[in-house]
Amino acid sequence: MTFEARLTQARVLVEGDLGRRLEACRRTPARLRAAMAHAVLGGGKRFRPFLVLETAALFDAPPAAALAVASALEAIHCYSLAHDDLPSMDNDETRRGRPTVWKAYDEWTAILAGDALLTAAFAWLAEPASAIPPHALGALVAELADAAGPAGMVGGQVIDLQADKLGEPKIPTLAHVKTLQEMKTGALIRFACRAGPLLAGRPAADLDALTVYGEALGFAFQISDDLLDVTGSAAEVGKAVAKDAAAGKATLVSLYGLDGARRVLAATQARALDALRDYGPRAGPLRSAVDFMSARKS
Amino acid sequence: MTFEARLTQARVLVEGDLGRRLEACRRTPARLRAAMAHAVLGGGKRFRPFLVLETAALFDAPPAAALAVASALEAIHCYSLAHDDLPSMDNDETRRGRPTVWKAYDEWTAILAGDALLTAAFAWLAEPASAIPPHALGALVAELADAAGPAGMVGGQVIDLQADKLGEPKIPTLAHVKTLQEMKTGALIRFACRAGPLLAGRPAADLDALTVYGEALGFAFQISDDLLDVTGSAAEVGKAVAKDAAAGKATLVSLYGLDGARRVLAATQARALDALRDYGPRAGPLRSAVDFMSARKS
Repeated sequence: MTFEARLTQARVLVEGDLGRRLEACRRTPARLRAAMAHAVLGGGKRFRPFLVLETAALFDAPPAAALAVASALEAIHCYSLAHDDLPSMDNDETRRGRPTVWKAYDEWTAILAGDALLTAAFAWLAEPASAIPPHALGALVAELADAAGPAGMVGGQVIDLQADKLGEPKIPTLAHVKTLQEMKTGALIRFACRAGPLLAGRPAADLDALTVYGEALGFAFQISDDLLDVTGSAAEVGKAVAKDAAAGKATLVSLYGLDGARRVLAATQARALDALRDYGPRAGPLRSAVDFMSARKS
Repeated sequence: MTFEARLTQARVLVEGDLGRRLEACRRTPARLRAAMAHAVLGGGKRFRPFLVLETAALFDAPPAAALAVASALEAIHCYSLAHDDLPSMDNDETRRGRPTVWKAYDEWTAILAGDALLTAAFAWLAEPASAIPPHALGALVAELADAAGPAGMVGGQVIDLQADKLGEPKIPTLAHVKTLQEMKTGALIRFACRAGPLLAGRPAADLDALTVYGEALGFAFQISDDLLDVTGSAAEVGKAVAKDAAAGKATLVSLYGLDGARRVLAATQARALDALRDYGPRAGPLRSAVDFMSARKS
């Protein structure tokens, strides 16, 4: 199976699971459920769930449990987009060619749909039907909450908005931009790659290897995102581009330069591949994911 | 020890624990941490944490684990207030005599501080330091997420706002107002009362008894809140009163009448007390909590 087919397979699987989970929400007001579905089922590559499913498959973790983690992670990613798009934050009206949640409904519905998705994600992990092995549940809940919380994704969004909204001096250092990347986008990707070995109860060596892989992949993802912002067109990327430069924002491209960023991307991809050196042909899809980073158009 | 002293003791314990947890947040931006503290450390009776600690004590559950649950629950309660107060929702500028989080900071900070508290609550439950027994962790995470999520607190807030914001016809039936109460405020109080027997690994009979107690207590809480809205003064209650009548909103008082509401309150209190009939003198503080409902001024 080609990498693209495998990515599509994961996407279809996770979207089906997310759809069923939203259908099954007992006693949820119709407006809330519809807004949650708008936030979650609006397309996207489903790259984070793909990483959960592939790292789980690599270690023969239970597939049903892996799917629960994949859907919970995607729900959290999608809630964060719904909140980031709000007028008081990035004020974006479209995402992937569709109206954002607040634009399709209104601000309060978008805020509460995000709150509901974030909360439901933890219910999906912990409910008995998730079939997550008891030995793994505590670590998965704690690591997902850490990755998404004040020292992770939400903290990264605050750092980002502080510069935009409060007219604070931008800090154009590599260390600052890297910390921001690690918190805002890296933490969830890192979690996705640790989910497999955690679910399978693998020893520290495997967790360490997949952590290096996940961190490198997340960094490569950010470099390639920053490159796309400079080199892509809005039609290809599906959202506004060149926003970073217009906002006077330091990015990995502004700090490394265009050629430098491409070189760092290649070195980061090599680091991600090296972390998988002991895992043989079964890690093929995870290796392909590394190349996919630099080739993607959106 | 009097009931008030015991309530104060729980409040001091939980506020100390919440303060330490916020202090210990690694790598959290200072602005985010300050806004989280503003949301969490702004006073209040800490009635939900009190219920967690008392139901835990009744069954000799580990006190450190009970404190982790109490703080997580309070963080979720406080995040919900920070979001409810937002301009796009209730548009409240003061709470307990202080500016609300969005008024003290701004909207985006208040939204993200709420997101961070909600997420951190699950980290506090699941991190190894919480000392929650493995047998109880799954149920506690799942039940807290259910109580706070789309079929619980967040769903209740959507139902409430739909009537206010969308000009939908108010549904002035008792069944509707009761469902709203169960979701918006009842679910977290019910969870607080189940937390003790869950932590202690008690059999279904104890869980059932504390569930009846918690549901009756939550309903009594709502009736007494609705009574305060009619009979209290703003100075006593510490927030705007008579808002419900002004908004043309059906409440338990408008449906039962003032005397009727007082009678239903008394019957509900009796139901709560009856649920504790088998638990002897150690359930004294939980019994006093029932009377406290009707005597409170805020």
